[in-house]
Amino acid sequence: MSQSDSSSSESMMDIRGCRLNAVAAGVRYENRSDIALIELSEGSVVVGAFTQNAFCAAPVVICKNHLGTNQARYLLINSGNANAGTGQAGFDIAMETCALVAKATGVESDQVLPFSTGVIGELLPLEPFQQSISELVSGLSANFWPEVARAIMTTDTRPKLVQKEFELSGSVIKLSGIAKGAGMIHPNMATMLAYIVSDIAITEEVAQQWHLELCEKTFNRATVDGDTSTNDSCILACTGKAGNLLIDNSDSEDALIVKAQIFEIYRELAQAIVRDGEGATKFVTIEVSGGNSEDECKKVGFSVAHSPLVKTALFACDPNWGRILAAVGNADIDNLNIDAIEIALDQVPLVERGAVHSEYSEVLGQEIFDKPEFTIYINLNRGGCTEEIWTTDLSHDYVRINAEYRT
Amino acid sequence: MSQSDSSSSESMMDIRGCRLNAVAAGVRYENRSDIALIELSEGSVVVGAFTQNAFCAAPVVICKNHLGTNQARYLLINSGNANAGTGQAGFDIAMETCALVAKATGVESDQVLPFSTGVIGELLPLEPFQQSISELVSGLSANFWPEVARAIMTTDTRPKLVQKEFELSGSVIKLSGIAKGAGMIHPNMATMLAYIVSDIAITEEVAQQWHLELCEKTFNRATVDGDTSTNDSCILACTGKAGNLLIDNSDSEDALIVKAQIFEIYRELAQAIVRDGEGATKFVTIEVSGGNSEDECKKVGFSVAHSPLVKTALFACDPNWGRILAAVGNADIDNLNIDAIEIALDQVPLVERGAVHSEYSEVLGQEIFDKPEFTIYINLNRGGCTEEIWTTDLSHDYVRINAEYRT
Repeated sequence: MSQSDSSSSESMMDIRGCRLNAVAAGVRYENRSDIALIELSEGSVVVGAFTQNAFCAAPVVICKNHLGTNQARYLLINSGNANAGTGQAGFDIAMETCALVAKATGVESDQVLPFSTGVIGELLPLEPFQQSISELVSGLSANFWPEVARAIMTTDTRPKLVQKEFELSGSVIKLSGIAKGAGMIHPNMATMLAYIVSDIAITEEVAQQWHLELCEKTFNRATVDGDTSTNDSCILACTGKAGNLLIDNSDSEDALIVKAQIFEIYRELAQAIVRDGEGATKFVTIEVSGGNSEDECKKVGFSVAHSPLVKTALFACDPNWGRILAAVGNADIDNLNIDAIEIALDQVPLVERGAVHSEYSEVLGQEIFDKPEFTIYINLNRGGCTEEIWTTDLSHDYVRINAEYRT
Repeated sequence: MSQSDSSSSESMMDIRGCRLNAVAAGVRYENRSDIALIELSEGSVVVGAFTQNAFCAAPVVICKNHLGTNQARYLLINSGNANAGTGQAGFDIAMETCALVAKATGVESDQVLPFSTGVIGELLPLEPFQQSISELVSGLSANFWPEVARAIMTTDTRPKLVQKEFELSGSVIKLSGIAKGAGMIHPNMATMLAYIVSDIAITEEVAQQWHLELCEKTFNRATVDGDTSTNDSCILACTGKAGNLLIDNSDSEDALIVKAQIFEIYRELAQAIVRDGEGATKFVTIEVSGGNSEDECKKVGFSVAHSPLVKTALFACDPNWGRILAAVGNADIDNLNIDAIEIALDQVPLVERGAVHSEYSEVLGQEIFDKPEFTIYINLNRGGCTEEIWTTDLSHDYVRINAEYRT
């Protein structure tokens, strides 16, 4: 098991049945790669999860269509331009990029899934694709994971690449995942994109079920500012080349081992995205326990994670517990009894019975808030559900970056 | 009709049946008044609207109780300490402050309504009340509106006082309203407080109905950062001394005239609060029309108003329409057809059919965004409802003030 931010390829693993490439095509940036292609062998299982934003970018619409009509063989990704808010013209261009890949590789157009991330509202130029597709295809290689992780970045400060290897009843299973900037950390350059490829043999049904469940528990628990991008996409592809006994149900012992590994890689990628949040100086986990439902735990967690007052207090290293309690109270939960709620910062009890805990002191709270990573524990004491949210602070840099970005 | 930010009392109107006073009692601040008392004559109709935050400060709980059990005669307000998150001890102290006023004025304790605004989580000191109540009571005067408007301020940069006078079938009706910092503009020093007093004769039933309806259309449409304080309270008191024919239904011509005047004063106060939002450099109206319901118009309006990306774009004077459209798409509206949506900045068309309007140019958008006040018009084109939200930008000063406040 290894995680790497470096672009050296020596520690990188090949995933059997998967080749990749990235080129500098000049979509928007100069002197860096910005179009990537991921090739999946015939018979691969490919499943996706996409933005819930009603304003869905053209490539997202096409991805969903193509996943429903044919077996995906190529993932085509560009950074620098989101092809969002571009109407029919943007849709047509995205379709043309798929056709270019299809022609160069001998597959059907609907076996190509397009992804875009970058500026909203500008038409995606077709020329960079026309000029680079043949180079992209001819240079496909199994060990270009770091290059592709870099090519999909926009204002991310570092690539996000996680790889894992584990044994399963005698077979060696490999997993490789890359991701870029989450939620609406990166405004115009919005969009979370994540691609996880494994050589495991698994049915589409199980893969789809796990993918939605695990995305919900990981990528959908990562928040910087509460905005949802128009282009968010997360793909799980399994080539089936590992030689394991086909995973065709989610209850076997093998299945549980595999699911736990996939969960791990999703979680590491999701947390890496939050850690690289724009202007982020803190990584904070909000664990809400004792809820009646997953939904109410999430509501409370996101209410705290999205409160500008909590976020500025995090940035200021100010253990301002009144802001946390007020954000809990603001979560719109039916019949919430504030007096039953307990809050702790890591191991330090903070709130009990609607007031500050008798053993709490500002010195103890300050020690926690000074740390770069810590957990805010919120126990609603009314049920058996627990959920985690990962978030960051709201810093001067967040305002600076987002206020100055387009200038 | 006049609006004044000055503390000179010459232009201020007396409201028959209402006397006020404010003193420097040292609750937290030095050299400024911080406890105020408003006296209402016997027979006054008093109605309230309070925070929806489940974490309700002690004075809010007591206000609601007292309004339900007796006729309110005194409003006791302190700044500097919110008496929130203080458990049973905080409740007991708030009750004692009511008892002090009751004893000094000869009314029952439950005829006194307590209000607090300021730091959360510190016990409200009783001593400043013990030492100042008799001075407060003996100095009551009909023309201390500016003094009370100042006494209830926390980190507001200016007092908010609006007064109106109008004729109603031969009677002269007077209205006077004061307010302080809204939503959670003012974190620890949170809380919107507003008090509107009139000499009009009106039944409690009509006053209550109008108060809730008009608060919803004004104070509840004002947002800076989407947080709801633990102490928000808004009181309408009508002394009945104007000599008008009792307003006992909401449909008569007189009733409509009065309601429009009350609406005006609420709106002016609510907008004054947004204009004085922490770090605010812009006052932006978001008008959402063509909705199927009030609720869906509000959801869209608040989604745009609360988007950190829209707010930083407002601060940067960057007409970044992709962020506005993404925030609309993020509003969680069922079956929203993004292609039907039209967006305009003041009179400049911005978005049509999911893409930028053909007549739009960055120069036109920039002209609007450079203005200190403008309107973002969003037409959902699917129904007959229209709602307005008022908000501000997210500036460096917002982060600075909220990050540095408690230090």
